[in-house]
Amino acid sequence: MALGDSRKILLAHGGGGRLMSRLIQETILPRVRQGDDDMPLTDAAQVTIDASVLCFTTDSYVVQPLRFPGGDIGTLAVCGTVNDLAAAGARPVALSLSLILEEGFSLDMLESILESIGRAAGALGVPVVTGDTKVVEVEAADGLFINTAGIGVKVPGSVLGFDRIQPGDAVIVTGTLGDHGMTILSRRKGMMFETPLESDCAALSPLTCRVLEAVGEAVRFMRDPTRGGLAAVLNEIASGSRCDIEIEETCLPIRPAVRAAADMLGLDVLNVANEGKMVLIVAPEAAEEVLAICRADPLGREAARIGRIGSPGEDGGLVELVTRVGGRRVVQMPYGRDLPRIC
Amino acid sequence: MALGDSRKILLAHGGGGRLMSRLIQETILPRVRQGDDDMPLTDAAQVTIDASVLCFTTDSYVVQPLRFPGGDIGTLAVCGTVNDLAAAGARPVALSLSLILEEGFSLDMLESILESIGRAAGALGVPVVTGDTKVVEVEAADGLFINTAGIGVKVPGSVLGFDRIQPGDAVIVTGTLGDHGMTILSRRKGMMFETPLESDCAALSPLTCRVLEAVGEAVRFMRDPTRGGLAAVLNEIASGSRCDIEIEETCLPIRPAVRAAADMLGLDVLNVANEGKMVLIVAPEAAEEVLAICRADPLGREAARIGRIGSPGEDGGLVELVTRVGGRRVVQMPYGRDLPRIC
Repeated sequence: MALGDSRKILLAHGGGGRLMSRLIQETILPRVRQGDDDMPLTDAAQVTIDASVLCFTTDSYVVQPLRFPGGDIGTLAVCGTVNDLAAAGARPVALSLSLILEEGFSLDMLESILESIGRAAGALGVPVVTGDTKVVEVEAADGLFINTAGIGVKVPGSVLGFDRIQPGDAVIVTGTLGDHGMTILSRRKGMMFETPLESDCAALSPLTCRVLEAVGEAVRFMRDPTRGGLAAVLNEIASGSRCDIEIEETCLPIRPAVRAAADMLGLDVLNVANEGKMVLIVAPEAAEEVLAICRADPLGREAARIGRIGSPGEDGGLVELVTRVGGRRVVQMPYGRDLPRIC
Repeated sequence: MALGDSRKILLAHGGGGRLMSRLIQETILPRVRQGDDDMPLTDAAQVTIDASVLCFTTDSYVVQPLRFPGGDIGTLAVCGTVNDLAAAGARPVALSLSLILEEGFSLDMLESILESIGRAAGALGVPVVTGDTKVVEVEAADGLFINTAGIGVKVPGSVLGFDRIQPGDAVIVTGTLGDHGMTILSRRKGMMFETPLESDCAALSPLTCRVLEAVGEAVRFMRDPTRGGLAAVLNEIASGSRCDIEIEETCLPIRPAVRAAADMLGLDVLNVANEGKMVLIVAPEAAEEVLAICRADPLGREAARIGRIGSPGEDGGLVELVTRVGGRRVVQMPYGRDLPRIC
């Protein structure tokens, strides 16, 4: 691959697709990991301390614009990291907050973003307990980058992993797809719609904890479809479980305005980032209960069962979409450069 | 203060001095903290989970140049965060690693920095367990920024805090001052010396854990003198303990080349960053044992007792230097813009 061999970082290396996966697997992990450590990659690592199993995760946020309909980089920095803990089956306990500021950045803007952070963390009851602030010269950064790391504790009784996924399991998504990515992108392109787009940026840990407490081990796996969208997450699940996945186009919850914006820009909504959605793989007998719990929560009102896990695939698991007219198409892992700086 | 009132972020806001302290106290904490939470600021927060007391810390690294004699941004990202845990009296358990890369950044350079991270973490036996990668466009960042967060567990028997500091306690530093800051700065200015400068970048947790295991509660407080140097840390200690501090110029371990470089650039070595040193406040009867433990470690060979905690001060604690000729001068909190992007 000519692009991958250019020995330079490309925007696509950060896009959540195939190139990012290669960078992580081939460049980062072999150098940073120790000895025979080959744990699978999940949204949050498990760390055992004394008798407690902790989850630990980190994310840096570089979204542009810093403010968008439905939130800002501060909201995102809390929700994104909390959602990684949620996907790992954890209840968030504490957050760290690290700011990289560009010289000349507006203090008013900073204050407003910090207020978003305080509001989002406060609503969840998860304190920001430690932090750091760096300032770099004009043009050495783009306004503001935020890193949050998070610690959580596993919800008792939850056992999640690719290896728990079985043929016949239901694929559930907690709501509409593509809202965050299309909001950011249409904002950047200056597009206006009759129904304004709004990011779905929200913290899902209260919802996922409720699901895990109710059905426990019947939840096999969870992941939040951020960069790379539903397509990336389903491909990761297919590859991790080595099972095929079949989803139904008619079951996918997508707002008309999001679909219109994606069509206009020639994007596949399946590849577009979400920031307040979770994909759950659930034992079929528990699917209805999980959907009911989701739908009772404002953040899961449009939860839908969108497909099922198929048989173990010959080639490590293939994701197929059954189209509106009954055709089938393969949903590929996005390559990675559709939408830079979406989060 | 005209500068502080300009409603824009200044480089000095990141310098580790008075302006940064104001930004944290007046802008960040009131917005981000919840309710009546007013814990003192330490290098790492304590989080209680079940019966375990964890320490949790974060730092972003923006140093320029990315490689310097004695280390690189990767070494720094491991050592800096480990040292924050060490200062909190913790043994590090796990690290997170988050990269913000500029499009076009050299993969060779990235690989070499990742190898430094793996080497530094491997030497300590502290695994990197979770991570994140973002890529931004050319000129939206300056090559590479790294964030690491760290989790540690408190060394049993250690009780550290400003409130434990008492008049008569010894002030110990584990080695020479100013090496990191003067190395970075002379590299940037293209200065050459007969004795080349080298960063002291190193992880101190093995040393601090050994000290705590040996003398336990006799260690009252620790902090690593990074941005703002010894002057900032001593002023924080004076202000936190409300005691005066007296240090002896003749006792300060400073390499001649560092002193020469600082003189040439008109800098006070006391304000210059270190990345492999710890300041310990220790009960006077334990001071010799602590010095002996430090000096038995290559990283503490030049440890020195540099002063003592004085009486409670009228004005919240003053730091005074007794000069070579017996004069006295006040060591002020640095304002903060001597050395941007030192770490």
